[in-house]
Amino acid sequence: MKKKIDICLSPELFPFYNSDKKSCVVVVDIFRATTSMCVAFHSGVKSIIPMADIEKAKELKEQGFLVGAERNVARCDFADFGNSPFDYMDEKIGGREIVMTTTNGTQAIEVASANDMLIIGSFANFSTVLSYLQTINNDVIILCAGWNGRVNVEDTLFAAALTESLLGTGEYIAESDAVFVALLMWQDAKNDIRGFLMKSEHISRLLAHGLQDDIDFCLQFDTVDSLPFYDKTTARLKLMAGGEE
Amino acid sequence: MKKKIDICLSPELFPFYNSDKKSCVVVVDIFRATTSMCVAFHSGVKSIIPMADIEKAKELKEQGFLVGAERNVARCDFADFGNSPFDYMDEKIGGREIVMTTTNGTQAIEVASANDMLIIGSFANFSTVLSYLQTINNDVIILCAGWNGRVNVEDTLFAAALTESLLGTGEYIAESDAVFVALLMWQDAKNDIRGFLMKSEHISRLLAHGLQDDIDFCLQFDTVDSLPFYDKTTARLKLMAGGEE
Repeated sequence: MKKKIDICLSPELFPFYNSDKKSCVVVVDIFRATTSMCVAFHSGVKSIIPMADIEKAKELKEQGFLVGAERNVARCDFADFGNSPFDYMDEKIGGREIVMTTTNGTQAIEVASANDMLIIGSFANFSTVLSYLQTINNDVIILCAGWNGRVNVEDTLFAAALTESLLGTGEYIAESDAVFVALLMWQDAKNDIRGFLMKSEHISRLLAHGLQDDIDFCLQFDTVDSLPFYDKTTARLKLMAGGEE
Repeated sequence: MKKKIDICLSPELFPFYNSDKKSCVVVVDIFRATTSMCVAFHSGVKSIIPMADIEKAKELKEQGFLVGAERNVARCDFADFGNSPFDYMDEKIGGREIVMTTTNGTQAIEVASANDMLIIGSFANFSTVLSYLQTINNDVIILCAGWNGRVNVEDTLFAAALTESLLGTGEYIAESDAVFVALLMWQDAKNDIRGFLMKSEHISRLLAHGLQDDIDFCLQFDTVDSLPFYDKTTARLKLMAGGEE
């Protein structure tokens, strides 16, 4: 029997796409949270405590944790890192347990944290995610972090790219209209993702903050091969065994 | 100053698109609730009481109201009408106040009922909606009813068609990525909406129920020129003055 694949365009819609909680959820926030998480594990971080609540992140900073914190594109002033993947190429995070809170990405993780499996996806670890999903029997839901509850283009494009590759294996069937909408957009975008995204909402927000290099990095395929997953018992993101650790 | 236009792909996302509650909301449920509502006013209905709760609709039936009620495509057994536009071409509804409850459309109305303006859109009254919006100064949010909280293709296509026409007047600017996604799909669909939709989720559900004629009718532009709006003081849909009444 084929595995089902679906795309949820906003964390707010997740309950309507997640009937049995047994699917493997791929959380994606291309600009920039999930890209940065993949980079952090590539840089040797031991674990990440994802935190939707910024006040709790501040408390953990006071307890001595290294903290990455961002709201509405900017780094929070109390934090060690912002939301840029370049912040997580720092070797001082090696072997450390760090805290991360971002505008959309950590909220998306929270929404799906009760599912049987939750992994972190980005263009940066695209092929690693693709290979992993083929080794398990779970249906797949790709959960786009979006922007403050709203739909965005870049996460939808990642979802479509991954869906197209999964459907190409012959082992999956598409579940809903959201897949149809996303795949159609991908056909127009795939030959020039960056050019396509220039018309979108969030990229102009990032460009206004001078984050040109972040954009370029976040749209590159397979710059790392780490696969972060959410460990329910410790409420932390960890590196999947068999990965780079 | 230009008016803003945005598209909300599911009633569940409406709070994230509706910051000031002053926008004119165009509620759309192409298959089939809002199409049927436009037809009902064309047939002379005096008002429609939209009702998200099916039990309350049943109570009103017992009090002597004519009731249209549908869940998951099928007409509810206690009801006078289902959700087919053909049900509302019946002259016995002329001058009557009727109750309607449907799977998605009436829920979408409820979500947006506190806004300054709420009108009912469908391909059936497309040009009437388009003309009306140009006579008012409000920003516009097109609210897609979707399917049980999920995104669907047919409502998104209507939203894109209306958005394209409004942008064409030069009086509007697009607000978010959802507009971008919808317009792109519309470029692929506009020359053969029905053919395009054959690949979507809900149309197969309707075809399985033998609703071929409903589909054809619901995809026709400008079959009526009624413009239903939501009257907050009476909690009823009524015909906009200057319409067919």
